[in-house]
Amino acid sequence: MPAFAIGVDLGGTNLRIAAVGEQGRVLEKVTTGTAVARGRDAVIAEMCVAIQEVAARHNAAAALAGIGVGIPGIIDLESGMLRESPNLPGWHDYPVRDEIERRLGSRVLLENDANCAAQGEFWMGAGRGSQDLCMITLGTGVGGGIVLQGRIWHGMTGMAGELGHITVVPDGAPCGCGNRGCVEQYASATAIQRMARERALADGSPELARLANDRAFSAQDVFALAQQGDRSAQEIFHQVGLMLGVVVAGLVNALNLSMYVIGGGVSGAWDAFAPSMFEEVRKRSFVYVATAPGTEAASRRRTHITRAQLGSDAGLIGAARVALLAEEHQIHQTARR
Amino acid sequence: MPAFAIGVDLGGTNLRIAAVGEQGRVLEKVTTGTAVARGRDAVIAEMCVAIQEVAARHNAAAALAGIGVGIPGIIDLESGMLRESPNLPGWHDYPVRDEIERRLGSRVLLENDANCAAQGEFWMGAGRGSQDLCMITLGTGVGGGIVLQGRIWHGMTGMAGELGHITVVPDGAPCGCGNRGCVEQYASATAIQRMARERALADGSPELARLANDRAFSAQDVFALAQQGDRSAQEIFHQVGLMLGVVVAGLVNALNLSMYVIGGGVSGAWDAFAPSMFEEVRKRSFVYVATAPGTEAASRRRTHITRAQLGSDAGLIGAARVALLAEEHQIHQTARR
Repeated sequence: MPAFAIGVDLGGTNLRIAAVGEQGRVLEKVTTGTAVARGRDAVIAEMCVAIQEVAARHNAAAALAGIGVGIPGIIDLESGMLRESPNLPGWHDYPVRDEIERRLGSRVLLENDANCAAQGEFWMGAGRGSQDLCMITLGTGVGGGIVLQGRIWHGMTGMAGELGHITVVPDGAPCGCGNRGCVEQYASATAIQRMARERALADGSPELARLANDRAFSAQDVFALAQQGDRSAQEIFHQVGLMLGVVVAGLVNALNLSMYVIGGGVSGAWDAFAPSMFEEVRKRSFVYVATAPGTEAASRRRTHITRAQLGSDAGLIGAARVALLAEEHQIHQTARR
Repeated sequence: MPAFAIGVDLGGTNLRIAAVGEQGRVLEKVTTGTAVARGRDAVIAEMCVAIQEVAARHNAAAALAGIGVGIPGIIDLESGMLRESPNLPGWHDYPVRDEIERRLGSRVLLENDANCAAQGEFWMGAGRGSQDLCMITLGTGVGGGIVLQGRIWHGMTGMAGELGHITVVPDGAPCGCGNRGCVEQYASATAIQRMARERALADGSPELARLANDRAFSAQDVFALAQQGDRSAQEIFHQVGLMLGVVVAGLVNALNLSMYVIGGGVSGAWDAFAPSMFEEVRKRSFVYVATAPGTEAASRRRTHITRAQLGSDAGLIGAARVALLAEEHQIHQTARR
């Protein structure tokens, strides 16, 4: 009987659940009305009901291998608890994994949401066929995930891949993490809004000033303005690309992977920031230059820097993959005994 | 019969050879008079004679597992050729590995010298007992090596670990690699000399000005001045620590390893640059803060940032280790067939 897994994306605002086949096909996708703001007990209870409903519809045709849950925040992999999550207040020191396992009787794996997205893109998206992948997710904040030889690189305590808090400007804009000049301050949706307000006050175009006066304007609005040819808006995305390029170049120099993927909502503005990003990476990484697409010397082994392909499904698919890999690993271990 | 390996350090000026036992003991260490400037054929010929002499003295008591050669530059691991080496002009596209193998009839592995140093420190130095390690080598330039789960992380084309060319100041000092603001421009011996000259011309102390007037002054001289309490010299090392801290913080955020090691000649000035380095890492990495030595929450799993322990032997020992690991791997593969 074929296997499937449940992938869960426990976002800051709502909850999404998918059943994913062992070959990576999304069998079903559900967005529940669960408001995360209602608190952990309500969320966990409704999540478990929804998982059971989804799983029940596929149990006849395939065997449930496990449940992977992607969570924004820092997870203690050993204990299955959330160590820190700005978007899930009150979940600290709550045994998330054990609570879900107890209610459902199935194996549950928690994973950082950006790591899930990286695993999803590696498996079924931009990274298909790659050996390794590094993904930077540009959303409200900037997250990251590193996949080495098919597995998420967790590091010593599961905190690897905090790429959004790499310093790009030592004396730069203050960041919520306590540092200054983190790339999150230049390449997130929040940063684009801030830069738009700053530029509107300084030397921006009248159109940008009008936009920035609207309290509800979004990074997407700034991108629309850039697409209409507004120079001030274009310069903001030029800055996004520049800063991203510095970070990507550093990661190419350090890790020399074959695949770097830019995802998250802001990656929709690819056309506006990618040119300056590539220009910086070329300037700042001879490892990239030696292995760039189009380089003759590296015809077989190239460094690719590309857009994510799965959109917001990356996290769901990746969470399911995490559960499937854990199951495979267990079967493998048992067979070896 | 126990095994041993030969480790070779083919530096920019001379050639060192060691016999290293499989437990990591240095059985013998030789520095040959071979001047690398005499060209590749002379160097390879003399290297092979010297290796044979050293090996012959240990062949009776132990079996030669292989020969590891550390080389400054970019190595094509598959072909065993040097792709690029500023310190070894004329060696480009020369089949270094095959030439040595042909003459000696033993298995030879080429490896980047900074990778060898990282593997040496991991095996017998500061990283003993660690799972993973990242080493930054501060010499004439700045090199790096990353060891993950006991193995050098090569990346796709063997160019991983080029940590010296990570950007720390986007608009900073121009670097020989074509980039601006590489950490090599702030933390190498060459950079310390440049910063001393710059400061002597600007607002430096009379002592620093006197030193910088001497054409033959070294980074070591600047350190001596700093130790004597000279504020200008101290500020130079403060800058070294600051820039190193930015890079180390980024690597902690990205990889979350347990061990970061600072080696190379400049690491002798540890007392002068380490305080500002640690201050920067604390500011710029919450991954470090959460796992720093002394943090209660991370009593078992800590991020260590420390000085290298093996000095210039790290590369020799690491090169031998590379050969021993390759031999182990081969035995393991054969046993599985």
